[in-house]
Amino acid sequence: MHSTSIILLGSGNVAAHLGPALKKAGYRISQVYSPNLENAAALASRLEARPVNQLEEVSPEADLYLVMLKDDALAEIADKLKLSGKLVIHTAGSGSIELLEACSSRRGVLYPLQTFSRSVPMELSQIPFFIESSVADDLPLIRELAAALSERVYEADSATRKQIHLAAVFASNFTNHMYAIASALMKDADIPFDVLAELMVQTTRKALQTAPLEVQTGPAVRFDAAVLESQLKLLTGNRDWQRIYRNISSDIQRMQVDKRKQD
Amino acid sequence: MHSTSIILLGSGNVAAHLGPALKKAGYRISQVYSPNLENAAALASRLEARPVNQLEEVSPEADLYLVMLKDDALAEIADKLKLSGKLVIHTAGSGSIELLEACSSRRGVLYPLQTFSRSVPMELSQIPFFIESSVADDLPLIRELAAALSERVYEADSATRKQIHLAAVFASNFTNHMYAIASALMKDADIPFDVLAELMVQTTRKALQTAPLEVQTGPAVRFDAAVLESQLKLLTGNRDWQRIYRNISSDIQRMQVDKRKQD
Repeated sequence: MHSTSIILLGSGNVAAHLGPALKKAGYRISQVYSPNLENAAALASRLEARPVNQLEEVSPEADLYLVMLKDDALAEIADKLKLSGKLVIHTAGSGSIELLEACSSRRGVLYPLQTFSRSVPMELSQIPFFIESSVADDLPLIRELAAALSERVYEADSATRKQIHLAAVFASNFTNHMYAIASALMKDADIPFDVLAELMVQTTRKALQTAPLEVQTGPAVRFDAAVLESQLKLLTGNRDWQRIYRNISSDIQRMQVDKRKQD
Repeated sequence: MHSTSIILLGSGNVAAHLGPALKKAGYRISQVYSPNLENAAALASRLEARPVNQLEEVSPEADLYLVMLKDDALAEIADKLKLSGKLVIHTAGSGSIELLEACSSRRGVLYPLQTFSRSVPMELSQIPFFIESSVADDLPLIRELAAALSERVYEADSATRKQIHLAAVFASNFTNHMYAIASALMKDADIPFDVLAELMVQTTRKALQTAPLEVQTGPAVRFDAAVLESQLKLLTGNRDWQRIYRNISSDIQRMQVDKRKQD
């Protein structure tokens, strides 16, 4: 058993993955806090920890507080939780390290670059973790925590991490939304979504092997006005998708023109 | 050697993949036409075929004409190439089977659902091919051609194929553009693009294992206004990306709200 004891604040997708992994790595999780007691209890029971749903119940005795709440809840924590002298770490990609300034002078960040869904199991060891510390002396402890979870640990300041998080929103959340629209369109055609599987996997593989701008295909990059028009027409029933189609297609063309100027 | 002789019209990404695969499957490729003779010659030399760049030079003696040109070039072909009694097949996802009506009464479609880049080698056998024939008697020949390339051959009429192509544009071209933007943002942060690799692969895997709408994560689906605002601010230098960010984020929220109503 590891000597560092941890309290988790949050019971969402990130906590559901990091909590059990930390326990497996030998850390002792003493409490799980969530404003929703049921959620706290569900995760706490997997970690042999005590669930709490009042910030006043959060013990001041742990070594380390890992805050995995969404940003408006983070602000409430910052207001109400005083843990002076304790190391308080949040996991938010876009949250500055100063976010929990009011909680403690010892602050850190542990940002996993991954999309966590509670129901989808995941191997953490290859996930990049970006760490930061407000106090240089705490960096080894944060690094140790990250290294217990993953082989890929990088230091990054708050500005760099915010930029990485923004890139991740495009590469993951927005990509997934393109899949959601494609899935709805396939349903309209009465064809199973997974007929697109090879195409999706190959698109990702090509982008990583070469560079996305080099391997773009399709009507927009071919400036194929006839197909662009006919596809916009197919989307007549959904103005939001039409707008997205139009904006992305013209941005594909703009970036391609810029690229050719530079080549 | 197969008894069917083929003439390829086009020397782009699709032709560069299908041509060699057909030759390998034993088909004889007699000519490669491209308006650009150099491009025709480059592909023809790999296929032991004769390159031509004038439609008048296209021999009327082949059994089958495979047209892999972009849509405006297809229209020119339809105007100028008369191949009555010959089977003329195009590969365009959004092109109706009537597109080459003027060329011949025997028309077909062979649409590979994949993104082809000349420089990226690819195994065709798992790629879905959608076929269609204007004449029922030709369907077996078109099916044989498709089956020589892939194990996954489906029949689809023009309307269904257009809808599949539209879905593919979202699932592949637009996804790739999200990667292109992510790549540019990572470059700004001075972090290698492939740090996003695990995230990208996992995003695609999750969407296929479950359903994209079920596994969406990120600030938009959390209705995390603070992060949405701060990310829009980071994009201040690029109004096109700001617009894309805003439109996709609000569409993620709209589809999530619709989904919850239905759940």
